[in-house]
Amino acid sequence: MSNSSHAYELIIIGAGPAGITAAIYAARKRMDFLMLTTNIGGQVIVSPGIENYTGFQYISGAELTAKFQEHLDRYKFALKMEEVQKVNMEGDLFRVRTKAGTYIGKTVIVVTGRKSKELKIPGEAEFKNRGVSYCAICDGPFFQDLDIAVVGGGNSALEAVLQLVKIAKSIYLIERGPILKADTVLAEKAKVSDKVRILTSAQVIEIFGDKLVTGIKVQRSGSETLLPVQGVFVEIGSIPNSDMVDFAARNAWDEIIVNCRCETNIQGLFAAGDVTDAPEKQIIIAAGDGCKAAISAFRYISQR
Amino acid sequence: MSNSSHAYELIIIGAGPAGITAAIYAARKRMDFLMLTTNIGGQVIVSPGIENYTGFQYISGAELTAKFQEHLDRYKFALKMEEVQKVNMEGDLFRVRTKAGTYIGKTVIVVTGRKSKELKIPGEAEFKNRGVSYCAICDGPFFQDLDIAVVGGGNSALEAVLQLVKIAKSIYLIERGPILKADTVLAEKAKVSDKVRILTSAQVIEIFGDKLVTGIKVQRSGSETLLPVQGVFVEIGSIPNSDMVDFAARNAWDEIIVNCRCETNIQGLFAAGDVTDAPEKQIIIAAGDGCKAAISAFRYISQR
Repeated sequence: MSNSSHAYELIIIGAGPAGITAAIYAARKRMDFLMLTTNIGGQVIVSPGIENYTGFQYISGAELTAKFQEHLDRYKFALKMEEVQKVNMEGDLFRVRTKAGTYIGKTVIVVTGRKSKELKIPGEAEFKNRGVSYCAICDGPFFQDLDIAVVGGGNSALEAVLQLVKIAKSIYLIERGPILKADTVLAEKAKVSDKVRILTSAQVIEIFGDKLVTGIKVQRSGSETLLPVQGVFVEIGSIPNSDMVDFAARNAWDEIIVNCRCETNIQGLFAAGDVTDAPEKQIIIAAGDGCKAAISAFRYISQR
Repeated sequence: MSNSSHAYELIIIGAGPAGITAAIYAARKRMDFLMLTTNIGGQVIVSPGIENYTGFQYISGAELTAKFQEHLDRYKFALKMEEVQKVNMEGDLFRVRTKAGTYIGKTVIVVTGRKSKELKIPGEAEFKNRGVSYCAICDGPFFQDLDIAVVGGGNSALEAVLQLVKIAKSIYLIERGPILKADTVLAEKAKVSDKVRILTSAQVIEIFGDKLVTGIKVQRSGSETLLPVQGVFVEIGSIPNSDMVDFAARNAWDEIIVNCRCETNIQGLFAAGDVTDAPEKQIIIAAGDGCKAAISAFRYISQR
């Protein structure tokens, strides 16, 4: 149990693209800071090929994570692989609690990203990790030559399809809305494969099976169909990891509300990346805004 | 003279980190767009080593420009190496004029960056390119074993010093304010060199010479000193290249005012990067905001 009374100038919670960029800038400003995170890379780790991080034509999530890690390793700072449970305010200081201890910061940057949204339908919880997955890149290889379904129609669903098309025997892409919202370039790639069948205006209402998933029940144009599949990849979006700072202003989707300088409504509390209400969730945006958050934290400390 | 009546969905003016990222995103959204620029890379081209673009521990400006160029080359779109003189509105369309022609866009993203600020003191214009320079990386090699002065105290001045310290015999770093505003890490590097003398609260008031610069007059604590130098690198900041859209709202420093989505006060006109009032001028921020501008332009086109 570490309860040192040392007050860091800054505590960065999370180490995705926003957190790593914030750390690089904080280190270059010679700030005394602590990074608390359960992983390095955030959602980038589980990204398949990335083609839109400026400067890299094409790079896998694992490779970009390695580049980020390498960049971060260049600087000396306190890093603890601990999950933050709660942040509390005490006067104008922040007390950041993990299972291992409590750390004190004069400023905090929350860059905790997001986690997958669930379908919340019968069978989903029961068959989690027994056919139901939220990560195509992690679990895809288990579905060699099997029939599977991907639920969703945005970029992450289409990326899952493109990832899985090399592995699975066939893929149903099932989207609730009338059209796919994904980038045209991704949708076009999926459509050319004869392994992929796209069902729009279709809703998965049940996942069933025995020990493992054997099928799904799909509602479409008023009628219900059973589709035999052994895997269900849920790619219907995500929710922000913002509960640890529930005292800060958040929007209806629990995203932390920030201004253009990545300041929250709480003095000394900053946020950037996918945990915020920034309208687009993109790696390059998270990185840019992580930089803004670090500079804002530095300015706040300098002016105290 | 090209006066085609084709109206592009988007015209991107400039090709620094913001413009290149905007182009990558516009291309991936299959937008019909034209990029007008006089160079690829913008101010990155003349940057010495870059250590704070997330994912690259250390990369020269030239190398990062090459990476950007490579990334851009992956996509097909209209690119014309022409300097934009003026943008005019005609109904809800934009007419973008260069020396070679006029192009029509339904939306425009201005990502034109900045140019160097001048001292505006006697001798500066006279000795431009005869000892007075605004680009250490371009002109540094001409000052081998000479005594020089760098004017300014921000990151660009310190970067110029670090660039020039390997070349020049001695360097005066002359800053008007009482302290250096540059990143501590840069200032520390400069201070360890015995070639560098730092004069704060000091102002260069004249540059003199014969055919070439032979010295400067410096005012400090009320008295004037003549310093014999053969080169003067002016690194006191920059002004935005925003005159071509003088109908858009700009702040007191002529920066284009944008909101968090990179929208200006003119419908269909977007801006990102160093030409805007974004509080920090950083490559990673420009790239992130270029992405935001492209997504905003795409959304605007989709909703018309």
